Amino acid sequence: MEYETPLFFHVMEYASRADRDVVDMVSGNPDWEPPAALRDGLREYADLEPDRFQYPPSQGLVELREEIAARRGVDAEQIVITNGAGEANYLAMARALERGRGEEILLTDPVYPYYPGKTTMLGGTPAYVEAAADGQLDPAAVREAASDETAAIVVNSPNNPTGAVYPEETVRELVAIAEACDAILVSDEVYDHYDLSGTFSSALAVESAHRIVTNAFSKSMAITGFRVGYAIFPPELVDDAKSRHMLVNVAGNRPGQYAVLQALRETGPGYYERNRDLLRERVTTFTDALDAAGAAYTRPDGSFYVMARFEGYPGTLENVERLIDEAGVAGMPGEAFGDSRSEWLRFALVTPRLEEAAERLAAYFA
Amino acid sequence: MEYETPLFFHVMEYASRADRDVVDMVSGNPDWEPPAALRDGLREYADLEPDRFQYPPSQGLVELREEIAARRGVDAEQIVITNGAGEANYLAMARALERGRGEEILLTDPVYPYYPGKTTMLGGTPAYVEAAADGQLDPAAVREAASDETAAIVVNSPNNPTGAVYPEETVRELVAIAEACDAILVSDEVYDHYDLSGTFSSALAVESAHRIVTNAFSKSMAITGFRVGYAIFPPELVDDAKSRHMLVNVAGNRPGQYAVLQALRETGPGYYERNRDLLRERVTTFTDALDAAGAAYTRPDGSFYVMARFEGYPGTLENVERLIDEAGVAGMPGEAFGDSRSEWLRFALVTPRLEEAAERLAAYFA
Repeated sequence: MEYETPLFFHVMEYASRADRDVVDMVSGNPDWEPPAALRDGLREYADLEPDRFQYPPSQGLVELREEIAARRGVDAEQIVITNGAGEANYLAMARALERGRGEEILLTDPVYPYYPGKTTMLGGTPAYVEAAADGQLDPAAVREAASDETAAIVVNSPNNPTGAVYPEETVRELVAIAEACDAILVSDEVYDHYDLSGTFSSALAVESAHRIVTNAFSKSMAITGFRVGYAIFPPELVDDAKSRHMLVNVAGNRPGQYAVLQALRETGPGYYERNRDLLRERVTTFTDALDAAGAAYTRPDGSFYVMARFEGYPGTLENVERLIDEAGVAGMPGEAFGDSRSEWLRFALVTPRLEEAAERLAAYFA
Repeated sequence: MEYETPLFFHVMEYASRADRDVVDMVSGNPDWEPPAALRDGLREYADLEPDRFQYPPSQGLVELREEIAARRGVDAEQIVITNGAGEANYLAMARALERGRGEEILLTDPVYPYYPGKTTMLGGTPAYVEAAADGQLDPAAVREAASDETAAIVVNSPNNPTGAVYPEETVRELVAIAEACDAILVSDEVYDHYDLSGTFSSALAVESAHRIVTNAFSKSMAITGFRVGYAIFPPELVDDAKSRHMLVNVAGNRPGQYAVLQALRETGPGYYERNRDLLRERVTTFTDALDAAGAAYTRPDGSFYVMARFEGYPGTLENVERLIDEAGVAGMPGEAFGDSRSEWLRFALVTPRLEEAAERLAAYFA
């Protein structure tokens, strides 16, 4: 298993060198507008006095932490504003390993490939619990895999790549397993605004000193390049995480934090609802095409992705390249996400040319 | 020795709670204008299409890396754009330790307190070479301290807190020592634009596979809050550093990188010269006051800081608080920077009220 990014870059590069027009369904970058208030916030920031161009507090602008704290029902002191969800997950996993209660990080298969990469870099050992065909995670299987060696259980709901959204019961049981093993549940909820099912449940709903919740504005505000995310720690775990954040990054970037704060304050639920509606339409268009192509797939309950399996067309890099050349559609090989999805391909629904891609796939595989 | 930031925050907080007016000479945040092109770049960015709001390449915007590469005479592939010099130093020190050629990081005393903090976090062991009274580093002392156990030698020129600028000969010898011990010289050059002596010499001038140069636009463009820095690695060391950067932060922030690129392209040498002239004036004003107060000090050759020693007034946190209460000037305790400067106080020359602070100190100690 490789990290997603190098493979992602490889596929992107292959697609850009292709002799034909290719629809990019590789990346997880939203293609829609950020909130209007975000652009306004950035314009406003550009005119501020020089002292506002200097270091924000290491753990993030006070007003931003307070805004998030009020919305999430936690104390602002539990929050570290990070360089995106990437840093938030890094801090959370490092914090779990630093507790000295085991070196194993329990992940799911399929998995978001950054998690095993971070695990290994931090000196931990990844282990995997296989998700069901529909992407759901069976808490009994997690309970069986977890042990005294388990430092953390890292989950992602709504899930990349499966599109599964874990019900409250699963989340509650995952926290209970972390407590029973003296481990930490790291709940990466970066796709929370793209719950299409209405069944999303944050791990914050379960009071516990054994769960860390990570998130970012990257996906919800369509600004993956702004690098503004956050992690919410139990009070007893936050201080060491703040130190690591300070020693690695000093602080996050202030223009991004300022713009996100403005956008948080001034953007109503309609913005997020419109983007979900757009995604719902795209899911229907795309899965209709998959039906026409005779592919197996699970209709995603959330996030941006659809995994599909075409008969006799396993999810190898070679087949991804062939699909680029012969059908003009670029996806990600399922094998990048783990052994359990090596027969599958992942398609990201974040392109305005989704309908065209769907037609091409239907025609190619029909 | 504590990390600078908590102590820094402690002092700032104490000063803000004081009953009287206090001039802040604690922080290293420039108080002058950023380049005009930087503000323009940010305004321009705010109007770009949504795809420009998404992840930049993990190692940084291609045009920014090429611009830096051309100026520094290196290959763009050797450069990783980081979340400020903080992350650049973290990546450099981690890369040196990962080589498995020892676990000791050789630092100077006095030291910028983030270096020992990063060392410990990364599992290394800090060791110290004492600088001379004027802040200069004797290569013979470094040679004696270095051994097979040395993974890296981390230096900072122009220096925080001493204001020393190492001559070319010192830099050349430091690289030679790193080579002889199969270690890495990490040369943090974040104050390079504030060389007031004209004697600054970058470690880039010495061709070697044993030196990593770190830098940032934080100080040179007066934007510590933008978090845009970089590290230049030898070709054989860069790949693993890129992986760590990706696994920790995914990428740096794009608005900041875009604005810095515009500013780099459009800002002439006059901008930097004006800021140096301002600093030169401030050095004179401040050291005149130190003369009047009968203090010992070294006139800085570069960076923003002056260390001063007042007879019978050691550089403890207690005395820093007393100075806030009784003189209305806030500095940093010398003991924060190491044993060798426990009698000293550090004053940052980045306040428009410098003259007032100088008068207060002269009156208080006279």
